[in-house]
Amino acid sequence: MNIGFIGLGLMGRPMALHLAKAGHRLHLWARRPAALEAFAEVDAALHASPAEVAAHAEVVFTMVADAPDVEAVALGAEGLASGARPGLVLVDMSTINPNAARQIGGQLAARGIAFIDAPVSGGETGAINASLTIMAGGEPEIFERVRPLFEVLGKSVTLIGGVGAGQVAKACNQILTGVGVMAVAEAFNFAARNEVDVSKVRTALLGGFAASRILENHGQRMLDRNFKPGFKAWMHQKDLRIVMEEAHRLGLMLPASAATAQLFNAMVGSGMGEDDSIAALKLLEKMSSAE
Amino acid sequence: MNIGFIGLGLMGRPMALHLAKAGHRLHLWARRPAALEAFAEVDAALHASPAEVAAHAEVVFTMVADAPDVEAVALGAEGLASGARPGLVLVDMSTINPNAARQIGGQLAARGIAFIDAPVSGGETGAINASLTIMAGGEPEIFERVRPLFEVLGKSVTLIGGVGAGQVAKACNQILTGVGVMAVAEAFNFAARNEVDVSKVRTALLGGFAASRILENHGQRMLDRNFKPGFKAWMHQKDLRIVMEEAHRLGLMLPASAATAQLFNAMVGSGMGEDDSIAALKLLEKMSSAE
Repeated sequence: MNIGFIGLGLMGRPMALHLAKAGHRLHLWARRPAALEAFAEVDAALHASPAEVAAHAEVVFTMVADAPDVEAVALGAEGLASGARPGLVLVDMSTINPNAARQIGGQLAARGIAFIDAPVSGGETGAINASLTIMAGGEPEIFERVRPLFEVLGKSVTLIGGVGAGQVAKACNQILTGVGVMAVAEAFNFAARNEVDVSKVRTALLGGFAASRILENHGQRMLDRNFKPGFKAWMHQKDLRIVMEEAHRLGLMLPASAATAQLFNAMVGSGMGEDDSIAALKLLEKMSSAE
Repeated sequence: MNIGFIGLGLMGRPMALHLAKAGHRLHLWARRPAALEAFAEVDAALHASPAEVAAHAEVVFTMVADAPDVEAVALGAEGLASGARPGLVLVDMSTINPNAARQIGGQLAARGIAFIDAPVSGGETGAINASLTIMAGGEPEIFERVRPLFEVLGKSVTLIGGVGAGQVAKACNQILTGVGVMAVAEAFNFAARNEVDVSKVRTALLGGFAASRILENHGQRMLDRNFKPGFKAWMHQKDLRIVMEEAHRLGLMLPASAATAQLFNAMVGSGMGEDDSIAALKLLEKMSSAE
């Protein structure tokens, strides 16, 4: 299949390479031409604009930073919509505001372009190992056409609902992982400041209702003082900004998410933005220590 | 062994009965004599005061509501300390402030009485099924003497550290379970208000880093609208009060725990104190709905 891919960063590059290895012809455009170097040895055509990519592809993937980037690539000057052939499917795998996804989907639909939002969890490791969790929103028949491509990229692929529903699921995931990291960091700092062996607490708690993948995996990394990303604090900050934007729009009270969003703000402000989000523990330690 | 047991409520009664069934002779006193009725058919001696219980026992268990109750039973007029034989071990299985546990332990030590704090998780079901998780603090040699009795009551028994360390681990457990319940409730309300199928979100998220026993078990109960306790909201409110007392004493910043404690306050204020703590979902719904 002729597949467009725009957004060849840490996540997008290995994903696009998996699609090429699966036998598809790639059509690429990148803001920074250096991003294209990794594709010298695969079947990839380089193009001068998103519009030109769209003119050659049946499906185009985007994996960019935020909603304005998706809008620019999809609907801007020389954007995908201006070059699209009839029946083009645009699959946005970026993490953006669910309501922005619905609006972009609506504008594309008005121009005869199908849209699927399909954000992922699993991070760079998941992208490299093709083990991403993919949460999709869109029409079922469009999803089924794209599903074989998703299965090249991830190990768990779910159609959650209509356009935007993938972003809603991703936002829920970021609530649970963000608040979950904070809960473990708070508990560990509480135990440490009480001069109790944190490792024993973790082991005892894994046997009961406090058990979670975050306590097991990230908890061990906190004990090892391994704050290497992984998932960077500034990325989690951005994802919780989306959650809090939606809380504001819908009049939703999300107190634990709000406290967590503030902690990510403080991590970025404290120079920990490039650390893994589990460096939240370091922030809490810093805020309760005279050193 | 001659074993004292004081605090024969929902948790204490089945625990004491397990010890009797394991062949131990019970020595009981209760503020409310009705609590003793369940022991008519086991080998149990009824006494007129905690002091009298202590005079007949090698180990005395307490399972009461809060620190002042432990203090009154242990150190008050006609308390355990005033009747204790040399070498008595007092095992407090209540959930109380860790620092209060250390102070009670210190006062008992000064009177020649050994102290173990051993709060539990697993709730009434765990007490009835003898499947509690027991988190203990105290001297290792004292713990080893009591361990066979713990193994009658629970399936996971851990010595976390010195006196108070069991309460620290329990406080950490209540941080993780309380904040964890709020995170799931916030995510579910977020998805529902976005008109997305919450059940599909839960299933998709269980495959990734958001996976937890709370999302799996309590998440399903939220979907089933099953708010029957379980663990009551007012009990979780009390346990997070302990956490926040300690945060104040130690100068610890615990933002997610603090937001969660406020939500439990609001649940009790909204008449949901006797519901399970997962009724937090109902509170969030109520706060973001015009109905």
